[in-house]
Amino acid sequence: MQKIKIGLLGFGTVGSGVWKILQENKKIIGKNCGYEVEVSKILVQDMTKKRDGIEQKDIFTDNPKDILEDPAIEIVIEVMGGIEPAREYILKAIENRKHIVTANKALIATHGDQLIHAAKKAQVELCYEASVAGGIPIIHAIKESLSANRIYNIMGILNGTTNYILSKMTAENMDFETALKEAQGKGYAEADPTSDVEGHDAVYKLTILARLAFGSYVHFEDVYREGITKITPIDIEYAKELGYVIKLLAIAKEEEGKIALRVHPTFVPQQHPLAAVGDAFNAVFVKGNAVGDLMFYGRGAGDLPTGSAVLGDLINIIKKKDLQKRLYENGFDQNSKRVIRMEENQSEYYVRLLVKDVPGVFGKVATEFGRHGVSLSSVIQKGREEPSVSLVFVTHETTEQNVQMAIKDIVNISEVVKLANLIRVEKMS
Amino acid sequence: MQKIKIGLLGFGTVGSGVWKILQENKKIIGKNCGYEVEVSKILVQDMTKKRDGIEQKDIFTDNPKDILEDPAIEIVIEVMGGIEPAREYILKAIENRKHIVTANKALIATHGDQLIHAAKKAQVELCYEASVAGGIPIIHAIKESLSANRIYNIMGILNGTTNYILSKMTAENMDFETALKEAQGKGYAEADPTSDVEGHDAVYKLTILARLAFGSYVHFEDVYREGITKITPIDIEYAKELGYVIKLLAIAKEEEGKIALRVHPTFVPQQHPLAAVGDAFNAVFVKGNAVGDLMFYGRGAGDLPTGSAVLGDLINIIKKKDLQKRLYENGFDQNSKRVIRMEENQSEYYVRLLVKDVPGVFGKVATEFGRHGVSLSSVIQKGREEPSVSLVFVTHETTEQNVQMAIKDIVNISEVVKLANLIRVEKMS
Repeated sequence: MQKIKIGLLGFGTVGSGVWKILQENKKIIGKNCGYEVEVSKILVQDMTKKRDGIEQKDIFTDNPKDILEDPAIEIVIEVMGGIEPAREYILKAIENRKHIVTANKALIATHGDQLIHAAKKAQVELCYEASVAGGIPIIHAIKESLSANRIYNIMGILNGTTNYILSKMTAENMDFETALKEAQGKGYAEADPTSDVEGHDAVYKLTILARLAFGSYVHFEDVYREGITKITPIDIEYAKELGYVIKLLAIAKEEEGKIALRVHPTFVPQQHPLAAVGDAFNAVFVKGNAVGDLMFYGRGAGDLPTGSAVLGDLINIIKKKDLQKRLYENGFDQNSKRVIRMEENQSEYYVRLLVKDVPGVFGKVATEFGRHGVSLSSVIQKGREEPSVSLVFVTHETTEQNVQMAIKDIVNISEVVKLANLIRVEKMS
Repeated sequence: MQKIKIGLLGFGTVGSGVWKILQENKKIIGKNCGYEVEVSKILVQDMTKKRDGIEQKDIFTDNPKDILEDPAIEIVIEVMGGIEPAREYILKAIENRKHIVTANKALIATHGDQLIHAAKKAQVELCYEASVAGGIPIIHAIKESLSANRIYNIMGILNGTTNYILSKMTAENMDFETALKEAQGKGYAEADPTSDVEGHDAVYKLTILARLAFGSYVHFEDVYREGITKITPIDIEYAKELGYVIKLLAIAKEEEGKIALRVHPTFVPQQHPLAAVGDAFNAVFVKGNAVGDLMFYGRGAGDLPTGSAVLGDLINIIKKKDLQKRLYENGFDQNSKRVIRMEENQSEYYVRLLVKDVPGVFGKVATEFGRHGVSLSSVIQKGREEPSVSLVFVTHETTEQNVQMAIKDIVNISEVVKLANLIRVEKMS
């Protein structure tokens, strides 16, 4: 397989996530882009730092020119963060006709227009899916899939740290300071949490989304911003009483040619899909005039989710690179993977029997389950449908075959009237 | 602006949705693809049928050759449904080197491989985003954004009709027959509901997703299928008691090179995001080894959501068509739209005041709100933080300016200790 060379600017959380995925999913990535992706060089600040699991020691450099001026490197991935020198490096790479993938929200929010124009002039790609909402492909969705829509509004939970804090405060009646400390302990919040808890991070992301959604270059300074530090358990309790959940929402709405842009704590109705977004998850709710309501939900940060977005961009650039050869779907392997027979399926099972209300029937049924290797996790018996009663079992994980064989024998027990229902209980993982 | 000519095969629900969006969003679509999209011909069965809002009467034809053999038509949109003659027409169009967009799940699920190979041979695009989950861009996400991931599993609510029925049964303790009749009354279910309620529709969609996720050509006959007709209110009640919601899930999992494919009623834990997907909405939950958990939620059917997906595909094909000119992001209009000042923002407001617990204070506060044009929808007063008490107001919609001016005066009332909090209540629409 032909190789394509890339350079990495930065090797922090996201950079090492990108590296890990490139190793782990080498085969899949090769299949999906048609090339073997080779990391030629990685720019780091500290050459002496020990980096586990990387054998090629000469891959690291502290000289940006080794990447920016190497003609063999076709694509540069910028994951160093911050405005400078990231901006300078990217401009240099663009000038040298390298495609760019970046995860840098602050840079795109503050200097996006300059970079986009430079990329356009040099006829290279500039992709930044990873800059907003981590692994959630919201930029791709707005730019591609929803491109036939007029977008009315975007409402996002774009910051995982604050969502974790507010979720904790809501679930455990915790105050802000305690929840923040817990978030810091879990690595969800930085030692200086200002950028997250005061809403700056969400402002950057909203700025990027609003430009794409409305096709108008908005400035991050125009976004109204209010953080979550003043939210108290008392307010959360009143919110609950009134039927709401408090979330830090990033909101962009267009009405009559005017755009509203705001990041602030918000009462969200309890039944709205955004209200259910807990933990450090992100979610983006989009309303378009054709598609209606759409929501995307996933991990908004972390090495692998963000790396997934970076590499999604990378693969797209490579696929476009020689479009004439690769435009068309590759087709599928024919039956390369075996589809399992349903009898092999492993699951927990909900089994409801109608039985005669006489002593001893429970024991007989349980014995049959046991004889077929099916163990039970819950049993409910109530006298609702006399003269028969419902006898409800939930099994531990077992095979479809075991449970079906058990039921075959169970329905032959004289006190069992019939199998009323069997429904699979999904592990969801 | 240069024109690009397309032909429509079929003018039912989806076809007329495509037409409506092309009219309504003409400007946006032109901007996003760089061409004026012109529908040259529409193939219909009944030429005499009256079709409102379409002036060009010669646009309709009952002769497929008018589209399939017109060299001026570059892209064919197939929205007629069914296997034949849709398959025959698409193959003919491909042979004549036209790109294809289709919403036809049954056709892709049963003959996808034949069509993909034909398209590859003729070097044309074959896109079918609209065939699964309507407006939700799940195919695009799996093919593009998640292409660096090994996908472990997909769990989807892929059929809106059955989700509506199960949601009704759950919320209103309704039996299946009654809920089905209601779904039919609302137009969510067909007169013959078999394809939906027996799970055939979901099987087609799962087949398509599983192929893309696992890169292996699976056959729809290999999918285990069980419908929802046997679900009773009793089972739903037991599920609730055990902490679950019953959903018709379409599940594809890969484990150790083997694929499990099943569509059946499933116990979903109440706290799982899929459990909250109500009404006729669809949702797809994807787990990848890099991205982690991801969920997409939206309208899985209907003229405009499905039309949105069809036209997203169309725009992508057009953008790829002359990639060298159009590959690069167009940049944004500079400030074409005015960002409103926060004072203009319209919202409802939650206002919590700490006040001294003396008579008359409520009246004084309410008077100030009224004086500034702010009307109130809820008031809560409880004695929790003595000697002060919280006085909580939720306003009707008003401007930020009005509410801020009112509060300025309210905090000067001698019995008001302070403004404890002000949080915006979002309309979410």
